[in-house]
Amino acid sequence: MARVKALFFDVFGTLVDWRGSIAREAKVVLGARADGLDGIAFAEAWRAEYQPSMERVRQGGRGYVLLDILHRENLERILPRFGLSDLAEETKADLNRIWHRLDGWADVRAGLARLSEHFWLAPVSNGHIALMAGLARHNGWRWDAILGAEIARDYKPKPGVYLAAVAAFGLKPEECIMVAAHSYDLSSAAALGLRTAHIARPLEFGEGGKGEHAPSVPVDHAARDLVDLARGLHA
Amino acid sequence: MARVKALFFDVFGTLVDWRGSIAREAKVVLGARADGLDGIAFAEAWRAEYQPSMERVRQGGRGYVLLDILHRENLERILPRFGLSDLAEETKADLNRIWHRLDGWADVRAGLARLSEHFWLAPVSNGHIALMAGLARHNGWRWDAILGAEIARDYKPKPGVYLAAVAAFGLKPEECIMVAAHSYDLSSAAALGLRTAHIARPLEFGEGGKGEHAPSVPVDHAARDLVDLARGLHA
Repeated sequence: MARVKALFFDVFGTLVDWRGSIAREAKVVLGARADGLDGIAFAEAWRAEYQPSMERVRQGGRGYVLLDILHRENLERILPRFGLSDLAEETKADLNRIWHRLDGWADVRAGLARLSEHFWLAPVSNGHIALMAGLARHNGWRWDAILGAEIARDYKPKPGVYLAAVAAFGLKPEECIMVAAHSYDLSSAAALGLRTAHIARPLEFGEGGKGEHAPSVPVDHAARDLVDLARGLHA
Repeated sequence: MARVKALFFDVFGTLVDWRGSIAREAKVVLGARADGLDGIAFAEAWRAEYQPSMERVRQGGRGYVLLDILHRENLERILPRFGLSDLAEETKADLNRIWHRLDGWADVRAGLARLSEHFWLAPVSNGHIALMAGLARHNGWRWDAILGAEIARDYKPKPGVYLAAVAAFGLKPEECIMVAAHSYDLSSAAALGLRTAHIARPLEFGEGGKGEHAPSVPVDHAARDLVDLARGLHA
C-alpha cells in the first residue's frame, strides 16, 4: 500500500454548515426585508438549484463558469418565490457573498490543524479559489493549496476535477484520500484510484433531513468528524 | 485610490536563496561525488538555463510544462560540465527535488506572517503548485492560495500570469501589489495596472553579483526586506 500523502476535502456540507449559515446571514443582509422570511427554506431553495445549475457545464453545453456566477443566477431564480424580486443590485451581491463566509462545523478547525501536521491538505470543491480562500480566512483553516473545480475548469463528480488535484500535488491517486460527507463524491474518487474517507454529517439538511449518517458505498475510512478521522489515520 | 487587498510574490530570489540552497544541498545529495565540486558554480550554471528554457513556452513554440520538467532538462544540460553525466536516475531526481526545499531569506517568515494579518497573500511564481507547496511547508509560510504559472499555463513575464492571479482572487489589478526583487517582473505587472513593491536582494547572486540593490524602474514601494515592506504598508 502506498503511503498517504495528501487529503482532499469536499467543502459544502462536509466542512461548512451552508444551511444554517445562509439562513442566519441572509436575515442579517436583508434587514427589514427579512420580516417573515423562513431563512431555512430560503437556504434550502437556493441550494436546491446547485446541482442542476452545474449539470450543463458538466455535460459540455456551457463552458466553465465560477460558482459565484451560478449562485447568482440561482438566487435570481428563487427570489420571486420569497417576494424578493425587487431587491437592489447591491443587496443581491451581498447575499451572494454569504457563500464566502459560511461557518465550519465545530470539529473542522481542530481536525484540519491536526491532519495538517501529517498530510498535505487541499479543498477539492466545486467552489472557486476566491470563495475557498474566503472560507479559509473566515474559519481559520490552513490549506497547502486550493485545488478543485477552478483549476480543472469543470465540476465534480467529473473525473478531471479529482485527477487535476492529484496531478497538482505531483502524486499518484492512491497517495490521496478524498474526504466527503456525500457517498456519490467518494464513489467517483474511488473509481479513479483515490482512497476515500466518509464524514458523517447527519444534520447537513437539518433534523430528520437527508444528511448521511454513514456511507452508502464502500469506503476506506468512515469517521464521525474530522477529529475522529485524524485519530483513525493515527494523526 | 483603491484599497490594496492582496499581495503577490515572486519567489526565486525574492523569497528564497536559490543559489546558496542549491550549492549546499547538491553537495549533500551528491555525497562522495561532490568532492571538488564548486557548489556555487553548479547552482549558477543550473539557474543560468532557467530563463532560456522558459522562452520557447512563452513564445508558443512549446506547450506549458511544469518547471520540474525544465529544471530536469536543464540539469541534464549542465551535468557534463561538472563531470557528472553518469549519475544514477535516482540521484538526478533527488537533485531536481532540491528546488522544492530552498531556504527562505531570514526576513521572509516573519514578514509574511505580519503581512498576512492585513492582506491576502499568494505566490505568483514560475514554479508550479507542488513546488510552491513544498517551499511553504519547508519554510513555514502560509498562503491564501497558490497562484502563478501553473494556473495560467504560461510563464512570467507574460501578462496572462499576472492577470490570472488577479482574477483568481476576484480583484481588480489596482487592488493587488506584485512584490519582487527583479525590476522586469515589476514593470510587467505595472503595465497591467497592478501596484508594485521592490525588495532589495543584493546578495541573490552573491557578493558583487548582479542582485538588485534598488529598482531600475518606477515602483510604488521599495523596501529593504519583507518586514520593511510590512512597515511601509502600515501592516
